[in-house]
Amino acid sequence: MKVPPELLFHLKEREDFFIATHISPEGDAIGSSLALSMALEAMGKKTIVFDRDGVPAIYKYLPGQEKVLSAFGDIDASSFNLLLLDCNTPDRAGIRGLRFKSAAVIDHHETEADFGDPKWIEPHAAATGLMVFSLIKELGAELTREIAVNLYSAIAIDTGTFRFGNTTAEVLRAAAELADAGAKPGYIANNLYETWSEKRFRLLVLCLNTLDMRNGTAFTHVTQEMFEKTGAGPEDTENFSGFPRMMRDISISAFFREIGRHEWKVSLRSRGEANVADIAAFFGGGGHKNAAGCTIKAALADAKQALLDKVSAGITS
Amino acid sequence: MKVPPELLFHLKEREDFFIATHISPEGDAIGSSLALSMALEAMGKKTIVFDRDGVPAIYKYLPGQEKVLSAFGDIDASSFNLLLLDCNTPDRAGIRGLRFKSAAVIDHHETEADFGDPKWIEPHAAATGLMVFSLIKELGAELTREIAVNLYSAIAIDTGTFRFGNTTAEVLRAAAELADAGAKPGYIANNLYETWSEKRFRLLVLCLNTLDMRNGTAFTHVTQEMFEKTGAGPEDTENFSGFPRMMRDISISAFFREIGRHEWKVSLRSRGEANVADIAAFFGGGGHKNAAGCTIKAALADAKQALLDKVSAGITS
Repeated sequence: MKVPPELLFHLKEREDFFIATHISPEGDAIGSSLALSMALEAMGKKTIVFDRDGVPAIYKYLPGQEKVLSAFGDIDASSFNLLLLDCNTPDRAGIRGLRFKSAAVIDHHETEADFGDPKWIEPHAAATGLMVFSLIKELGAELTREIAVNLYSAIAIDTGTFRFGNTTAEVLRAAAELADAGAKPGYIANNLYETWSEKRFRLLVLCLNTLDMRNGTAFTHVTQEMFEKTGAGPEDTENFSGFPRMMRDISISAFFREIGRHEWKVSLRSRGEANVADIAAFFGGGGHKNAAGCTIKAALADAKQALLDKVSAGITS
Repeated sequence: MKVPPELLFHLKEREDFFIATHISPEGDAIGSSLALSMALEAMGKKTIVFDRDGVPAIYKYLPGQEKVLSAFGDIDASSFNLLLLDCNTPDRAGIRGLRFKSAAVIDHHETEADFGDPKWIEPHAAATGLMVFSLIKELGAELTREIAVNLYSAIAIDTGTFRFGNTTAEVLRAAAELADAGAKPGYIANNLYETWSEKRFRLLVLCLNTLDMRNGTAFTHVTQEMFEKTGAGPEDTENFSGFPRMMRDISISAFFREIGRHEWKVSLRSRGEANVADIAAFFGGGGHKNAAGCTIKAALADAKQALLDKVSAGITS
């Protein structure tokens, strides 16, 4: 991966950096930001790492995570050079309207707006962490164990730990180098995937018991009663919609979470060409082609049927 | 990894190989065997690949899998050189008592018996596939796409696609090289993890419903009745023992599969320092520290209690 010379120059030349990443951050956002901050500080620079929503519990094992700020306090933006990581507009980072000394962007998402100078976008990079890996090497900073754990975690999250289609030989080679530098793959995977509470696991089991397969669509749901029975909460249902995708004959997985009487939050996941963004949009929601969501107000059976009608219409149209 | 010179000599010198692997094979057994067969055939040798139980449905995407024999037919063992892969006694391969011209062993399990000459055992290798990877390079055979897919799959299965503690920089570097040679990580992961039949998924749900947590050990089980109810078979339970490990408070997951009246095949998975190889050995089984298996003849409640007693003894000793 080729780091733009003007970005290297920018980072070497300037002294005070405000590293910000997107709201609702995941491992790539937090890990990349922390790694870059550590490398710049090792070069004698001053950095702040900011995420409006703070660090989710699952990422509390990342070295340096305690320094992520989620409030501005008395920070004067105008004395910092903004580095937007893993997103490319101030809006996505929840910092719209602030005036920085300069504003650079490092991201692997398609650009939404013409923002950032210098701006380094690699839509084909599996993770921003992979870009920061190249960047740190180009800067000549040492790949410490702390940096390696952050970057390995960043890359792991965005590739489904090397299971998604974006996992290339380059990704695996970077992971090997990060393991050499002290990242422990087993320890990191354990933190990412094996820290469920028993409550959450029992809720998942109840949820999977509701499996209802119709015409290539897998329906599952969680009711208020199930939350009460297990003691788990709505945040525990994250990624429940992904489980039925293990089945080869599924093109869409629709997970319904009860949020009120005859009111359901629906999380949709699809495989291949099935477009759930269109279906979610019909019900007033949105998202991407293979991951979207919406709310449906109806009794469960009716809500499922309404969704199924829309899926069938989409398949035949 | 250092390949013993006498093994290289043995493989170069001889012409007819009978490659056999263990009963109830998984990806490492099948993938390693097929890859070595392909490399030897490219060197002009004749090979047979044998697994008594055949290739499980999930591995039908492996190139060359159609040539795996599960019956002897009119094969004359005495005209072949046996290569035992991913196991180290003829018994484990279901070929006890047959007389071959010679018998070599390539395995990453601790030796159970003094069998094999030459014998190459690497208990610290994450997968036999990793050993065969080194071996093929040492033999000077080309790393074709077909070989790469088999070896990548072998390594992926035995490392939980790079999530287990045995995932080292060397493992990731081999995976990168295999991806360079044409193995597609996303395609392979999709085949390994998202091709479940509905029957298998429904059996998993029934299994997870039996979750019984005691003192850091998660017990689950599948009965003959559940097989009948879902139409799934014993091979569908592969990796069922892995699921409860998602919970942070679990140190051991013990999955019981009913194989007869008051007879259970037990699959054990552990995390960190909990050694299930010792526990399995006590019941006459074996395996690795974090993944082992045994058979217990008792009513379910008694079998579980016996195991729990052994776990508790192990923890306190």
